[in-house]
Amino acid sequence: MKRVLSGIQPSGSLHVGNYFGMMNRMIKYQDENELFSCIVNYHALTTSNDPEVLRENTINATLDFFALGLDPEKSTFWIQGDVPHVTEFTWIISNVTNVGLIERSTSYKDKISKGVIPNMGLFSYPLLMASDILCFGSEIVPVGKDQKQHLEIARDIAVRFNNIYGDILVIPEEDIDKDTQLVPGTDGQKMSKSYNNIIPIFGDESFIKKQIMSIVTDSTPVDQPKDLNSPLYRLFTLFLSDKDKKILENKFLSPGLQYGKVKADLCDTAIEYFRPFRDKRDYLSKNLDYVFNQLAIGSEKATLVADQIIDKVRTVTGLNYSTK
Amino acid sequence: MKRVLSGIQPSGSLHVGNYFGMMNRMIKYQDENELFSCIVNYHALTTSNDPEVLRENTINATLDFFALGLDPEKSTFWIQGDVPHVTEFTWIISNVTNVGLIERSTSYKDKISKGVIPNMGLFSYPLLMASDILCFGSEIVPVGKDQKQHLEIARDIAVRFNNIYGDILVIPEEDIDKDTQLVPGTDGQKMSKSYNNIIPIFGDESFIKKQIMSIVTDSTPVDQPKDLNSPLYRLFTLFLSDKDKKILENKFLSPGLQYGKVKADLCDTAIEYFRPFRDKRDYLSKNLDYVFNQLAIGSEKATLVADQIIDKVRTVTGLNYSTK
Repeated sequence: MKRVLSGIQPSGSLHVGNYFGMMNRMIKYQDENELFSCIVNYHALTTSNDPEVLRENTINATLDFFALGLDPEKSTFWIQGDVPHVTEFTWIISNVTNVGLIERSTSYKDKISKGVIPNMGLFSYPLLMASDILCFGSEIVPVGKDQKQHLEIARDIAVRFNNIYGDILVIPEEDIDKDTQLVPGTDGQKMSKSYNNIIPIFGDESFIKKQIMSIVTDSTPVDQPKDLNSPLYRLFTLFLSDKDKKILENKFLSPGLQYGKVKADLCDTAIEYFRPFRDKRDYLSKNLDYVFNQLAIGSEKATLVADQIIDKVRTVTGLNYSTK
Repeated sequence: MKRVLSGIQPSGSLHVGNYFGMMNRMIKYQDENELFSCIVNYHALTTSNDPEVLRENTINATLDFFALGLDPEKSTFWIQGDVPHVTEFTWIISNVTNVGLIERSTSYKDKISKGVIPNMGLFSYPLLMASDILCFGSEIVPVGKDQKQHLEIARDIAVRFNNIYGDILVIPEEDIDKDTQLVPGTDGQKMSKSYNNIIPIFGDESFIKKQIMSIVTDSTPVDQPKDLNSPLYRLFTLFLSDKDKKILENKFLSPGLQYGKVKADLCDTAIEYFRPFRDKRDYLSKNLDYVFNQLAIGSEKATLVADQIIDKVRTVTGLNYSTK
């Protein structure tokens, strides 16, 4: 049982792509490992300075994750900013991190090349991420391709720190997900908020329907077999048992299938599939005190872990002046 | 009565130049203003990673300042690392600070040009200093020439933060000291540890004597009047009342003065002058529990102030998600 750390950006409501691409995996970590996950509102400050948006996104992300099965009793779940230890840790490790290492961050260089005027938070983003990882003693960090380099930076920092101060920090390992299905959006590209092709899980049902009805289809004549690589087919199968997949496959390969009818079926299926999550989210949003209480418990658990590690770090660096 | 913030580098024992150049001024702030001062051990990490040296320097600086008259009951005195709020504040303001502003720091550029391989702590030094200033609501910051630009950076950051989030941070004013006497070292240059020309206040008496006896003198014949601009004269007058200054002046201007005799007198005078401080330091060093207790009280006082300001900052930035 290893400690897994997962940072969650508070950026808008979750969609079908997030659910099948990430949530299933989080649930697995939660059941089989010691999952630490937090909503990274300190990181969110690097790109936005609208307090109302940050507040809403933080609460919404919490409600989404709780509703979709993240269990604060099985895992340690907190809001990053509720455990400020991570910022102290950031300062400490910044002194063993060459500026050059951070300058090589490609995601930073990408943003600059797009004309973003960088602030120090954006520049230091990988340092705070390294701190998130190292200050909770994380052993495994699930990363997508875009975060792979940041994890390498965290590893470099941990190795350098240990070289100077002794064997204090856990060197984290990456866990790159190979199994996760690429979930297509309504236009056939990868489902992503930035492509405007998402199917949401929560919120207005009529918008979910509208999005599903807008899934692109080809012009194969009604009496011909249909494409099993189409986004409609691939999206639909996500919700189906193996048995039901077979039935859908047969329908697609037999003449007479009408896309409109299939989309209407997918609407019903998806809404039925997510109903318990939607109900739970509804309930949670009306019981925010319970949610805040769970977050308080989560930040206490995270604080206990961070306190232990930071105390060691403060001792070996000499910040603790009254002890040996 | 304004709040004055003064950060103290934990770097070796204080000398005569520090005392007459800085300490008198701190005592004045303490009596006439609300003095906040801290020993900046987080900053010290940017250039050193020897824990034992950092610990010793932190304790020694505390003993020196307490012995020389800094009164923890009249002022708020703490060790920077005992109030980690300043690191959270650093992260928050980093997001309103353009990288370019920090890159323009001349003291950073100086270090680079001398071949130092910069770490992120060194690069972010002015950010942490801005945080020290802003997160305690400081109104006045005494700065030497070398820190003038850093204070301007702190002001820029405060103005920018307030433009975005409302009128939250106090815009600090600099207080450049015009009255402080330039204290010459034993070689006639400005007294400074880096020139190896200091006269220490504490420590071994024989070393104090040795240093005073090594003050450079000219070869004016015994029967000629002596130079009132000589380091020996200027150093000696620091310890004298106006009346005694007049007597020394007469001696210097009359024939027959022997430098060796004057130096021996200066030894006696300086050691007598600092005796109460040396005794107090001795006492404190044998009563570290009292010292640590005063530091704990100081960090509690500083924490109360930082908590209030950071709570406002967390609210306006949206890090506080459960409140409006």
